[in-house]
Amino acid sequence: MTGDPVTFDDVRAARARIEGKLRKTPVLTSTTLDRLFGASLRLKCENFQRAGVFKSRGAFNTVFTLGDADAQRGVVTSSSGNHAAAISLAARTRGIRAYIAMPKNALKSKVAAVHRYGGEIIWVESRGEVPTTEEYDATVARVQAETRANLVHPYNDPRVIAGQGTCAAEFLEECPDLDFLLAPVGGGGLLSGTTLAARGARSAVKVIGCEPEAADDAQRSLRAGHIVPQIGPRTIADGLRTSLGDLTFALISRDVEDIVTVTEQGIAEAMRLAYEVLKIVIEPSSAVPLAALLERKLAVEGRKVGVILTGGNADLDQLPWARPAER
Amino acid sequence: MTGDPVTFDDVRAARARIEGKLRKTPVLTSTTLDRLFGASLRLKCENFQRAGVFKSRGAFNTVFTLGDADAQRGVVTSSSGNHAAAISLAARTRGIRAYIAMPKNALKSKVAAVHRYGGEIIWVESRGEVPTTEEYDATVARVQAETRANLVHPYNDPRVIAGQGTCAAEFLEECPDLDFLLAPVGGGGLLSGTTLAARGARSAVKVIGCEPEAADDAQRSLRAGHIVPQIGPRTIADGLRTSLGDLTFALISRDVEDIVTVTEQGIAEAMRLAYEVLKIVIEPSSAVPLAALLERKLAVEGRKVGVILTGGNADLDQLPWARPAER
Repeated sequence: MTGDPVTFDDVRAARARIEGKLRKTPVLTSTTLDRLFGASLRLKCENFQRAGVFKSRGAFNTVFTLGDADAQRGVVTSSSGNHAAAISLAARTRGIRAYIAMPKNALKSKVAAVHRYGGEIIWVESRGEVPTTEEYDATVARVQAETRANLVHPYNDPRVIAGQGTCAAEFLEECPDLDFLLAPVGGGGLLSGTTLAARGARSAVKVIGCEPEAADDAQRSLRAGHIVPQIGPRTIADGLRTSLGDLTFALISRDVEDIVTVTEQGIAEAMRLAYEVLKIVIEPSSAVPLAALLERKLAVEGRKVGVILTGGNADLDQLPWARPAER
Repeated sequence: MTGDPVTFDDVRAARARIEGKLRKTPVLTSTTLDRLFGASLRLKCENFQRAGVFKSRGAFNTVFTLGDADAQRGVVTSSSGNHAAAISLAARTRGIRAYIAMPKNALKSKVAAVHRYGGEIIWVESRGEVPTTEEYDATVARVQAETRANLVHPYNDPRVIAGQGTCAAEFLEECPDLDFLLAPVGGGGLLSGTTLAARGARSAVKVIGCEPEAADDAQRSLRAGHIVPQIGPRTIADGLRTSLGDLTFALISRDVEDIVTVTEQGIAEAMRLAYEVLKIVIEPSSAVPLAALLERKLAVEGRKVGVILTGGNADLDQLPWARPAER
């Protein structure tokens, strides 16, 4: 027992909780990429996870942690992306309502995913092009006042962090001898869960966070020793534009070996490489760790390198190397 | 023993021959597609096969069937596509030379694949835009005269047919209770190998060939009772533009339940569906059986349907719903 808000025991409990509801995603290898990077790669494919993204892990763990009385009031969250779809799917699976505060300019594909999984969208009123945190919070507070639904933060929540940790726990069980484990970092839910899993597995693996240069708040936060919020990031990795929270910052500060950053061009090239060589569809955020290898940001020659490919919900009309056909 | 030029015994021998050299490809499922098609789908992912295509099976079986004395003279084939890459990879794996007769206007990505796997390209001299069969044959004959290399036909060869049959043999072993088994048909190597595997497994599965309306020579040949060659097909399914050979026609006539055809728009939609829902990269030819389901060309409601997704070597700059970005 520790006084920590979230530990490996929570990850273990999360694994039991989501078992049978979510997929144990496959680990791919590629002789072509091994040759290109001079390392032995293991690629954990969360793009094949339900709702196409690792975030289903945190969402399911949270929704299925709720007691029955709490659960019947539903869940509420704010998200313009994958967390919204994951919470909607988890709630539908439990048979409860999900209220999703979304910006009016959210991508059609993300709105469609929430509708597909039965989530109820509440549009966030906004003065600017993108809602501010205050505008999101006001909408969520209004929904909570009306419904008493349970708030689920996209990443700064012990239940979410423990759920995301199940990915690395599975990965390290299948590949116990990894030298490095690379994951992208946005709000830090996945990366902090990954550190818990590595600690719990008593693994010597070095956990590395990867983020766009254009959204390098995690690297700056780690160097500063306190959270440096991300202001107006402009990156194609839309899942990594958020800033760390206090829980994720604490875990990442304690156990992450390093944070490396990559260029926008590197992200696009790495994304295309995954399509071309691995024959899988990944979204820009997922390509960030591959970009770190492509841009030689880590000395991995001859080492065994695990990479979490986080999701596959790419906008197929806006692939970074193509644009929609003229009809 | 039968007098047939190729039987299930050859498929079984091919499995043993390629074991450890090629991948046992995964079978995917999708609740979203099951709901869409009203059937229970099993998707055999040959896009994850070595060289990104099922054709590695026939190529490896043929190259590793050669005796040592024959093998040391190398292999020769003519192909502008996947067969060229597969033969190059098989030859390199055996440590022998591969001579590939290719048209000068072959796709850059296909040329690159042959180079990557160490094949030697001989450009086919051509008066027209696309070489005629006679022009291909003249080039191959010249290479054979110079090198005495072993000719490997892309599909009308018992060794190739037996190799392609290993795909359905694996598939039916993993999923023995399929009601339907769908495969695309171009020259018919895969489809005829599939019938051998179904026959050998003593399965009641109905084998269905799927082809573009714009290259419907297999359907017309079956109805006519003799080979009707394909003249000037215009389809995005570039792997399916060829005509049946005498060996493949005989097997397909004997054991295929039906041949169904699909529209070009259906192929593009089905291809996009695979990217969007399954999160995998497939090439247009691979999308043809999915298009048959999308266009309701078969009564499969409530049935268990196996689909062979044949390859993933799509031209990412020319996806049928997108075009290259302007630089």
